[in-house]
Amino acid sequence: MTREATSKRSTDTPAPTFKVVFQPSGRSGQVEAGVSLLDAARSLGVGIESICGGAGTCGKCQLVIEDGQFQKHSLVSSPVHASAASAEETLICEKHGLPPGVRLSCMALVEGDMLVTVPEEAQANKQIVVKAATRRVIAVDPIIRMALLTLDPPVLGDRSDQERIFAILEKRFGLRGVEFEHPALKALPGALRAGKGEISLTIWNDQTIVRVQPGIHDTPFGLAVDIGSTSIAAYLCDLRSGALLATASAMNPQVTYGDDIMSRISYAVETPNGRERLQRSVINAVSELGAQAAAQAGAAADDIVDCVLVGNSVMHHLALGLDTAQLGHLPFAPVAGGSLDLQARELGLKFNPGARVHVLPLEAGYVGADNVAVILAEQPHQQDEIVLIVDVGTNGEILLGSRQRLLCTSSPTGPAFEGAQITHGMRAAPGAIERVRIDPHNFVVSLKVIGQDQWSHDLPDSQVQARGICGSGILEAVAELFVAGILLPSGKFNPNAETPRIICGPKGQPAFVLATREQSITGNPILLTQGDVRSVQLAKAALYVGAQLLMKELGVKQAERIVLAGAFGSLIDRERAMVIGMIPDCDLERVIAVGNAAGDGARIALLNKASREEAARIAHWTEHITSPLENEFQEEFVAALSFPHASHAFPHVDQIIADRRAGAPVD
Amino acid sequence: MTREATSKRSTDTPAPTFKVVFQPSGRSGQVEAGVSLLDAARSLGVGIESICGGAGTCGKCQLVIEDGQFQKHSLVSSPVHASAASAEETLICEKHGLPPGVRLSCMALVEGDMLVTVPEEAQANKQIVVKAATRRVIAVDPIIRMALLTLDPPVLGDRSDQERIFAILEKRFGLRGVEFEHPALKALPGALRAGKGEISLTIWNDQTIVRVQPGIHDTPFGLAVDIGSTSIAAYLCDLRSGALLATASAMNPQVTYGDDIMSRISYAVETPNGRERLQRSVINAVSELGAQAAAQAGAAADDIVDCVLVGNSVMHHLALGLDTAQLGHLPFAPVAGGSLDLQARELGLKFNPGARVHVLPLEAGYVGADNVAVILAEQPHQQDEIVLIVDVGTNGEILLGSRQRLLCTSSPTGPAFEGAQITHGMRAAPGAIERVRIDPHNFVVSLKVIGQDQWSHDLPDSQVQARGICGSGILEAVAELFVAGILLPSGKFNPNAETPRIICGPKGQPAFVLATREQSITGNPILLTQGDVRSVQLAKAALYVGAQLLMKELGVKQAERIVLAGAFGSLIDRERAMVIGMIPDCDLERVIAVGNAAGDGARIALLNKASREEAARIAHWTEHITSPLENEFQEEFVAALSFPHASHAFPHVDQIIADRRAGAPVD
Repeated sequence: MTREATSKRSTDTPAPTFKVVFQPSGRSGQVEAGVSLLDAARSLGVGIESICGGAGTCGKCQLVIEDGQFQKHSLVSSPVHASAASAEETLICEKHGLPPGVRLSCMALVEGDMLVTVPEEAQANKQIVVKAATRRVIAVDPIIRMALLTLDPPVLGDRSDQERIFAILEKRFGLRGVEFEHPALKALPGALRAGKGEISLTIWNDQTIVRVQPGIHDTPFGLAVDIGSTSIAAYLCDLRSGALLATASAMNPQVTYGDDIMSRISYAVETPNGRERLQRSVINAVSELGAQAAAQAGAAADDIVDCVLVGNSVMHHLALGLDTAQLGHLPFAPVAGGSLDLQARELGLKFNPGARVHVLPLEAGYVGADNVAVILAEQPHQQDEIVLIVDVGTNGEILLGSRQRLLCTSSPTGPAFEGAQITHGMRAAPGAIERVRIDPHNFVVSLKVIGQDQWSHDLPDSQVQARGICGSGILEAVAELFVAGILLPSGKFNPNAETPRIICGPKGQPAFVLATREQSITGNPILLTQGDVRSVQLAKAALYVGAQLLMKELGVKQAERIVLAGAFGSLIDRERAMVIGMIPDCDLERVIAVGNAAGDGARIALLNKASREEAARIAHWTEHITSPLENEFQEEFVAALSFPHASHAFPHVDQIIADRRAGAPVD
Repeated sequence: MTREATSKRSTDTPAPTFKVVFQPSGRSGQVEAGVSLLDAARSLGVGIESICGGAGTCGKCQLVIEDGQFQKHSLVSSPVHASAASAEETLICEKHGLPPGVRLSCMALVEGDMLVTVPEEAQANKQIVVKAATRRVIAVDPIIRMALLTLDPPVLGDRSDQERIFAILEKRFGLRGVEFEHPALKALPGALRAGKGEISLTIWNDQTIVRVQPGIHDTPFGLAVDIGSTSIAAYLCDLRSGALLATASAMNPQVTYGDDIMSRISYAVETPNGRERLQRSVINAVSELGAQAAAQAGAAADDIVDCVLVGNSVMHHLALGLDTAQLGHLPFAPVAGGSLDLQARELGLKFNPGARVHVLPLEAGYVGADNVAVILAEQPHQQDEIVLIVDVGTNGEILLGSRQRLLCTSSPTGPAFEGAQITHGMRAAPGAIERVRIDPHNFVVSLKVIGQDQWSHDLPDSQVQARGICGSGILEAVAELFVAGILLPSGKFNPNAETPRIICGPKGQPAFVLATREQSITGNPILLTQGDVRSVQLAKAALYVGAQLLMKELGVKQAERIVLAGAFGSLIDRERAMVIGMIPDCDLERVIAVGNAAGDGARIALLNKASREEAARIAHWTEHITSPLENEFQEEFVAALSFPHASHAFPHVDQIIADRRAGAPVD
């Protein structure tokens, strides 16, 4: 079955050589007669996928041989100069349903000049674009690889199954010093029986066999997970193609034990078994999200063999079961900050028993692995222009810099933008108001509710079916109320605004009716109260002041580009984020919203093993700036609580408000 | 606190150098002024123990500075040329209770010619003699090392505790790329608090921190385990000194599920959960032996951080939870044959949570890791003379060869020599008859019972307190009965032997009363029946024929040396082993008994990491000879059942019997 013999010649006369050109890469070179096209491609640096290592069993290493012969660098029509397809090759092509004319590069031998085309599906080192501001192109090169091999039944004098597999891995795949994880070793005899000697190995980092399956399996699955203080997002990826197969998200069940990270630390440190309880709850949630995402993709959690976890320092420590006591006070020293490679089962994750977990490194006490992931996705450290990245979450994280210098800080934003601690707040799920528009002239409200394709003004009230309001809806509602003049710059409801939508809400505080009783599925109106507005002010001021802190440290007045990130249901509305003063006043063209950049970064680390090393370098190189605790900071914070208004400091916001009040079309 | 600064000089002028001689090694060289004696020793290849890496905290790196100065290669009296002891050094010496005049090599700096003596307890690379035929000297160089370090409280801007520890390990111990096991990482914050920053790390293979303890701990424990089909022996070692601290043994609880390896395979393969049950039973027994041995040494099972397991292929697979189906039939292919490194907790062993397990490699289908351990201990592959090693056990293993070629085979001996399947058989424990002497003239029996210091003829009958008979006693009883003429060469009781000790035993078969009712603690006599004799004949014939097979294959008529090994309570009596025909007839001077050589080999692998690689080479190099199944073998086996008697083939046995019957003194 092996092709090695064909590359050797028994005579001492040198073999003739022929020119072989591979398309679409265009790589070419002289190749000895009798060499397989797979070996020829490898020697010329052309990546052709093969999970059987050239054994002629996987049917992946397809190519098409074009007619021809080279004469003075050009190809002229001539008989094809490759070996004819053997009966065995034909059989394998039929077994895998390959179209006529397609050859297997491990079986087709060079016998003359040739032009060959490697179809896209057979090209190794695929690339994908991860959805991000920089539209970063990632080579799909995961730490997991598959190897398909066939073990003949043992004969007397053979070494053990394990040692025979190691010999094949070395000979055919060039892998030395590979070891079995113990569960995989235990599964080996059964898999060999079930697969009649044909087995697929899932290999981590070219060194550890983590899974053994009978027969041909070529697609390992991986899960990238962003553990936020309030919500958890999980992304299931095909580790072969890099494709995003499914996403799933859920509230972080730890919110039961405390809304913010300080209260989680208290619970973990002060409650007996508190740390274990918090770990178990988040790990169970991640397991559940993995199972949900796998089910969406028609697979099972048992198919997940790799996982990347990111989160802020406290989420990181709690997920790993590490003591968070030191994170609760200056100097906020983490127990572990470097990247970690673990077995998923060690953490209690219910994926494949051999699954691995990679945890991205932390930057500093309060700036976490999620921020490292944001950098991986947005690459500010590779850019000439100065970028401000605001990652909105319960624990907001802010980055400022360029390839020269990159600063980061964290900001205790609070959970308002994740829909928590808001009267009718909810997470981005069906029934959540995610977008809000208010006409500044007549205070007519229009809503976009998750689960409905149309805005509320295009629907009868009974079909709006609002249940609550999620983070993006809260942000937009506050911005629209301010633009409409219903909220004053101080954040107070304008006593002169005449609309029946302003009512006396819970605890006697003023409240605005976003969705009427008729539009609500609960039978009660969905309100935004004075207290809710205050929560948003606290949150946006924290982010604003964090950005100011970094600009001061870097000695710049403004960023050349602003990136708004966050695990919202939809993208953050950049205009309204600026209107409420979450980000510095600037030309809107310089602002982009990118969605969950931390999740994108986790996905990059999942799909490309080299990016894990890049993450380690980033984590060491980025400078952490601790929020000063002096009065100056307090004053700046108090000043930032107000909404931007008539001042030279906010020309762009002033213009937006003026245009809207003058009846400019709304986006 | 660090000493590095002292080795650097701020000026550009070269530092003066002085001659330093280390005793007892005699190594010497020129050393720059200002260098610590620890650094000087390292640069000259002198091993001085230090578990704090020269931080001046562990107090291990003691030495004594002799007076003197060198002139033309000889030392003349002169002022001492080392730096004076600082207050800090004096304090540390007092803390560790060091005698006056002892200096710490990490703190004493070279300031002139010096002769220094490294006391034995401070010498690194200690050596111990493992009890074995070759009296092999082993360098104590285990895969586990300790590192003592002190972490200052974190300050703002510090990296995580983990990363600061990695930095110290690299700077002070030269270890790069070290990682924490997850349980050790979880234990880190608590240990730092409890030790006020001073912690002891247990590091596996210079790469994985498996345990973190507060304060100073310098002695890791390891357990070497020989899992036999019938009995398990465990040896607890101090991994720093190499000392054997305690031994513990027990029946293999798997005997409940089948006496021999074939019946174990059947149980494992055919019974639902059979494999799991067999694994759990043996693993629990090993955990229990570890706890017993640790308790004997005043420690706990939690202090065991490394473990070496050996056993025949079936014991090996069952302990690892591997499928044994293939081991039940030709070609007896193991699932895994190479050496394995596992976490103890993965196997369910209840040692330290970070403990590791190393499993020695198998040689071939039926010849196991225990045999590899025997080779490690006895080193036949390093010797010029041809050695025959007979490892007596339920599954006997036989080796023959020299540095030229080494053959091995296994032999289904049966459990007779381990006291199983024998009417009054028991394992070597208090109450077991372990030695037997029978006067050939008057048939007076003398016994040695485990637990009594004296032979039975020196004790009143009531104090003999025999409970049964163990393997060595069984062997001796049969040999003595044959020498006395009570057993015929065929193995049958001699109908003409006139002694009331021959009675009608269970099932009407003849039996010999070894211990009378009065000598027995059970109130019944201890018997050796005709069936028991038959079991011994079957066992000894299997071993004899195995040795013949290898001699035939190697083309030799006899071995130059015979080694008798086995996990008996006491050493095998070589004279009586030859008398019953367990080993080829030869001059007794060429025979030695070495006890549990497999256990010795396991201990060597525990104490010296390089021997683990040697084991891998041995396992590949040794040739396995499968017992032929033809008639010829059956005939040889039947012929070997008889006891050696009046024939030119057994001159030495004939002489022994003749001498004894003529009244020669008995040993």
